[in-house]
Amino acid sequence: MINQLIAKIKATGAPIVVGLDPMLKFVPEHVKEKAFAEFGETLEGAGEAIWQYNKEIVDNIYDVVPAVKPQIAMYEQFGIPGLVAFQKTVDYCKKKGLVVIGDIKRGDIGSTSEAYATGHLGKVKVGSKSYYGFNEDFATVNPYLGSDGVEPVIKVCKEENKGLFILVKTSNPSSGEFQDRLIRPRVSAGDADGVKGADADRPLYEIVGEQVARWGEEHMGDSYSYIGAVVGATYPEMGKILRRIMPRNYILVPGYGAQGGKGKDLVHFFNEDGLGAIVNSSRGIIAAYQQEKYASFGSEHFGEASRAAVEDMKKDIADALNSR
Amino acid sequence: MINQLIAKIKATGAPIVVGLDPMLKFVPEHVKEKAFAEFGETLEGAGEAIWQYNKEIVDNIYDVVPAVKPQIAMYEQFGIPGLVAFQKTVDYCKKKGLVVIGDIKRGDIGSTSEAYATGHLGKVKVGSKSYYGFNEDFATVNPYLGSDGVEPVIKVCKEENKGLFILVKTSNPSSGEFQDRLIRPRVSAGDADGVKGADADRPLYEIVGEQVARWGEEHMGDSYSYIGAVVGATYPEMGKILRRIMPRNYILVPGYGAQGGKGKDLVHFFNEDGLGAIVNSSRGIIAAYQQEKYASFGSEHFGEASRAAVEDMKKDIADALNSR
Repeated sequence: MINQLIAKIKATGAPIVVGLDPMLKFVPEHVKEKAFAEFGETLEGAGEAIWQYNKEIVDNIYDVVPAVKPQIAMYEQFGIPGLVAFQKTVDYCKKKGLVVIGDIKRGDIGSTSEAYATGHLGKVKVGSKSYYGFNEDFATVNPYLGSDGVEPVIKVCKEENKGLFILVKTSNPSSGEFQDRLIRPRVSAGDADGVKGADADRPLYEIVGEQVARWGEEHMGDSYSYIGAVVGATYPEMGKILRRIMPRNYILVPGYGAQGGKGKDLVHFFNEDGLGAIVNSSRGIIAAYQQEKYASFGSEHFGEASRAAVEDMKKDIADALNSR
Repeated sequence: MINQLIAKIKATGAPIVVGLDPMLKFVPEHVKEKAFAEFGETLEGAGEAIWQYNKEIVDNIYDVVPAVKPQIAMYEQFGIPGLVAFQKTVDYCKKKGLVVIGDIKRGDIGSTSEAYATGHLGKVKVGSKSYYGFNEDFATVNPYLGSDGVEPVIKVCKEENKGLFILVKTSNPSSGEFQDRLIRPRVSAGDADGVKGADADRPLYEIVGEQVARWGEEHMGDSYSYIGAVVGATYPEMGKILRRIMPRNYILVPGYGAQGGKGKDLVHFFNEDGLGAIVNSSRGIIAAYQQEKYASFGSEHFGEASRAAVEDMKKDIADALNSR
């Protein structure tokens, strides 16, 4: 799956993933009106509205980007009907040839982590039969619980040829509260951090990054690992260090656009081969029609506005990479 | 809601929460056969089997415990039909008067965290109407992303009079990989850790625990905060320290029973008032009929075996507390 993602990034020339994070305030009135006319102002109506909204966007971008990243929280807030819209979205994106990164940020231990992995990436056994639950291609995972939480997910990834992005340094302002705290080196001879002679204090995100690099070795694709990392565009200096710590792990980079990250902030997330990072934009693309810059499309043509925003983002990143 | 939970703990004399974590291997054959006869060996069949299994257990324990904790991963693995079973379980438990702790371990940032909180604890707006999604009473939350991830959830808790349990020290063997790492004290005068004169290195879980204590102050009940913590029974010495760091935060204690925690390990999680902790057992109760000790009930009477296991657990904890 990582090989497939890289092939698609090369084919489109766009190291971009579109965050399908539909909030009702992004959905144009005419889409909402149609959905509410059919299902009422109900959870089902909301589910229908976000599904139709997603579909129109996907129809306009599926040939210019390699991947999408639906944020499950935005669906889960509408209960079961929202999750039905999530499933429809995943299925439709895969049918259109897009790689689907489920932004689910799950994390638990042992059989519970395995159950999440089964539901989102693998197949569950029911009597003599097996079924996929949501069947994304990649999922995001929270590392706070340690290897007991991550290993069962890697096991399912291996069986299914799928991948992960593990949270290392998140894009939000307060991510440093715990992630940046300085960690004492371990004193034992068998230093688990794997860096010989490292005796300086280092921030937690580096320790997690090193662990991601080790987990990544367990499930390698041709040139990069199936196990990637999440590092926010809002912390370019940390991205530079983490790029070095995790040379063969793809980095999923949130925080571009609405959260403040710019093309020039992204260059250090990429390797010299021009690969190694995929940058997410959510509202900057899916709600482009609400920006002054793309207002001329009109809300009727919101999908075309999204496509134009993708093209602009592609150029912004390419310009930054070309001038480094 | 924390007041209600404490009132129910006092009324039942059982600081116990039953983990409704149904795996198909726990579900007696006769329950599965009936479900599969109606829905086939399908995801719907699996959903029906775990729902009927839960219902029978709840019918047998609702009057002797204050709360249940469905682990959503065990439902999510069956996709939408599994989540329908989750919702039915939550609704039914609330109807029976049980406090429902959704073990969802979600954690994201800003509007995304708020969306999770909305879906699980609050109401979502659809046009001019508002609806509950899953509507649990408490939810578990992962703190790795910091205040940006937790504050939006606390906001929803305040609006809805609901509560949280934030992961501090989890019960699994590898929880120490990141949670136990020694953190350097901050050097700035305005030390954010709130402990004056603290200049020794301290493990991450203590830093998180202190933050939980601060978050807890934002949403206090009568004697305890609506914001609690998760600390594993498998680490009693750390529990003792965390009890002191978070004197007014309820501690949800997993790891009793199947994971190795015993009654005597639990005493330090409780305050002198006999309150402050609620201990979870999952398979030890819901699959009690599969243990030699309760085999005489037979699989037909699995619900009665669960009730007997609750009574034994209640006695084990009471004995430990009485002899401290």
